[in-house]
Amino acid sequence: MTTDRELRERAGKVIPGGMYGHLNAAIFAPGYPQFFERARGCRQWDVDGREYLDFMCSWGPVVLGHRHPRVEEAAARQAAKGDCLNGPGPVMVELAELLVDTVPSADWVMFSKNGTDATTQALMVARAATGRTKVLMAHGAYHGADPWCTPSLAGTTPNERADLAEFAYNSLTGLEEAAAALDGEVAAIIVTPFKHDSFEDQELAEPEFARGARRLADRIGSALVIDDVRAGFRVDLRGSWEQYGVRPDLTAWSKAMANGYPIAAVTGTDALRGAAQTLYSTGSFWFSGVAMAAAKATIETLRDTDAITAMERAGARLRAGLYAQAESHGFTVNQTGPVTIPWLSFDGDADLSVAMHWTTECLRNGVYLHPWHNWFLSAAHTAEDIALALDGTDSAFSATKRHFS
Amino acid sequence: MTTDRELRERAGKVIPGGMYGHLNAAIFAPGYPQFFERARGCRQWDVDGREYLDFMCSWGPVVLGHRHPRVEEAAARQAAKGDCLNGPGPVMVELAELLVDTVPSADWVMFSKNGTDATTQALMVARAATGRTKVLMAHGAYHGADPWCTPSLAGTTPNERADLAEFAYNSLTGLEEAAAALDGEVAAIIVTPFKHDSFEDQELAEPEFARGARRLADRIGSALVIDDVRAGFRVDLRGSWEQYGVRPDLTAWSKAMANGYPIAAVTGTDALRGAAQTLYSTGSFWFSGVAMAAAKATIETLRDTDAITAMERAGARLRAGLYAQAESHGFTVNQTGPVTIPWLSFDGDADLSVAMHWTTECLRNGVYLHPWHNWFLSAAHTAEDIALALDGTDSAFSATKRHFS
Repeated sequence: MTTDRELRERAGKVIPGGMYGHLNAAIFAPGYPQFFERARGCRQWDVDGREYLDFMCSWGPVVLGHRHPRVEEAAARQAAKGDCLNGPGPVMVELAELLVDTVPSADWVMFSKNGTDATTQALMVARAATGRTKVLMAHGAYHGADPWCTPSLAGTTPNERADLAEFAYNSLTGLEEAAAALDGEVAAIIVTPFKHDSFEDQELAEPEFARGARRLADRIGSALVIDDVRAGFRVDLRGSWEQYGVRPDLTAWSKAMANGYPIAAVTGTDALRGAAQTLYSTGSFWFSGVAMAAAKATIETLRDTDAITAMERAGARLRAGLYAQAESHGFTVNQTGPVTIPWLSFDGDADLSVAMHWTTECLRNGVYLHPWHNWFLSAAHTAEDIALALDGTDSAFSATKRHFS
Repeated sequence: MTTDRELRERAGKVIPGGMYGHLNAAIFAPGYPQFFERARGCRQWDVDGREYLDFMCSWGPVVLGHRHPRVEEAAARQAAKGDCLNGPGPVMVELAELLVDTVPSADWVMFSKNGTDATTQALMVARAATGRTKVLMAHGAYHGADPWCTPSLAGTTPNERADLAEFAYNSLTGLEEAAAALDGEVAAIIVTPFKHDSFEDQELAEPEFARGARRLADRIGSALVIDDVRAGFRVDLRGSWEQYGVRPDLTAWSKAMANGYPIAAVTGTDALRGAAQTLYSTGSFWFSGVAMAAAKATIETLRDTDAITAMERAGARLRAGLYAQAESHGFTVNQTGPVTIPWLSFDGDADLSVAMHWTTECLRNGVYLHPWHNWFLSAAHTAEDIALALDGTDSAFSATKRHFS
């Protein structure tokens, strides 16, 4: 029996269903390992010693590669002093200053632990500022796993979602109609910088949608909240809609912020500072220094090096390679999203059976992708790593072709 | 200008109000430092180099003392392999097994990051299991800082609290009446193991209240949820109501679980395992290995050593010393709560002005207490530390006497 299998049997006794949440391997495709032993750079090893070229980056957090020396050193230096103390350390101020310097829409910062903490807190600030209750979100968007936003209704109550209304991503008309229907009651419009819903091709934001959302929020006096939890620090350090000239009132950050250390943040504008000040929002570990030191080192590294350009180069190389391979094997594929947060679907593969087969074959060849959730590049992916990965994906296209012929 | 003052000025520009949440020094008493530099054992040093004998333990998380060798070693060993990977490590199973072995009411475990994650998730499990929506909680009890439970209404909506009803802690009649008023709609009764609301004397649970809550939950088919976030691992490793022979259906844990590393957990009974399995509840850092390794080492140390007895000894010594000192200075004081999670109030001090003065004097003498939130002992507090602390508190009583005479 493999170690993974043995651990799954033990987990089945002490963890509901053997595992839960987004890292539950049972919900990916067959053959995925559940338990991991170690990681370095863009490689991870499962508990049975199999090595993977990793294109999930722990579902986003790892942006510079695992155990990045500059981040580890900063974290260790802080840990030697202390982590969770009776108050924050100087690093909290330094990190807040760094974010305010880096993100044009950020005049202030509040830190927490989960991406869900940050999206929830952003809506609280918006509600405190406007005195309104309603929130507009895109249909199908993932904003976290608290009762108000988790994709499953299990364990939630209708009241917990009664203040939400939906619009279709990229439909400015839809957004305007949804706002009109709520007649002056909209506290916030929350939106991801691009559509990255699971099981579907990703969609970049239409610049006109982004700009129109900004105009609408201004017109009706609502806060525009960008949920940059997934995309932040992989698209544009200044915020993922800066490229469209659109600045949010509030932004939720987490995942890649500290290269895997647990932290999240809300940044906001001066106009909302007073409202933010009225909240009672806190957590036992929200002021801990080690994750803040790691975040500071991560953001400084992203700022001072060509890390984002390197990620883009690696992502572009992967995308070009996959298009060429798919064509040569007679597959029509769609590659969507930014090249640093890519996904590939097969044309006509509504039930994802081709994607499942292909990603399982990739996995067998040591390339860790995902059949229905977007992938992530890191700055640790070199041209050689991409070339090696493309060897694995090419064999996987061959095997998939044979299987479905 | 002191370093603390300088950091406050900088923080005032980039953090709303200069600080937020439970570690905002502005809401304690005058003179408290906001920023801390380092910690070891039961001592913390602020950024101006002042040393404190610490009786807040970072508001609970630090239970073995800062930088406890066994915990640090376990965390470092895991960190060298990896922390946030594409799946959990073996340590997740080992930690879940340890909790199930340690806590009689635990047949399974789900991990998260914040105490609020755990209380929220426990209610989700109860709602999924019962198909009901309503939750009974004690008036004034703190169960976290999400919109449904934060003590401030700022940024929350009425709908977010519409599924809650309240009862008075320790009033079985009140609890029964509140349940009857909801007529079969109660998914859960959530209760802290003792009353530890801020600004008030603590109250241990009446054994008859605890047993009556259990009987009521059984009779009406609701889940009994113990919020052991604050008290867990300082009263009874088996769960804080085990001493009354009362076992909950669900328990929320966090704070002291990993000696300061960020982790939380819900444990539950077999009857609720299927319901827990239906939730989609997750977070980017919920499966990270380092905090789990720290939790395993913390709980093993608490189990294998006399840590809890040592804490009780230190707490009893502190309580006896404070009673004797108060009496000798002519103060009538109330010391409430378990000796490991104590608090002291002054008779007739409704506006807490005496407590504010006394704790500020203690602080000046290097003893870090809190004027309106309960304190925490750790296993690092030796008899010598308590004796030293009592020197500081005695002078503080003198100074307080002089001030109010």
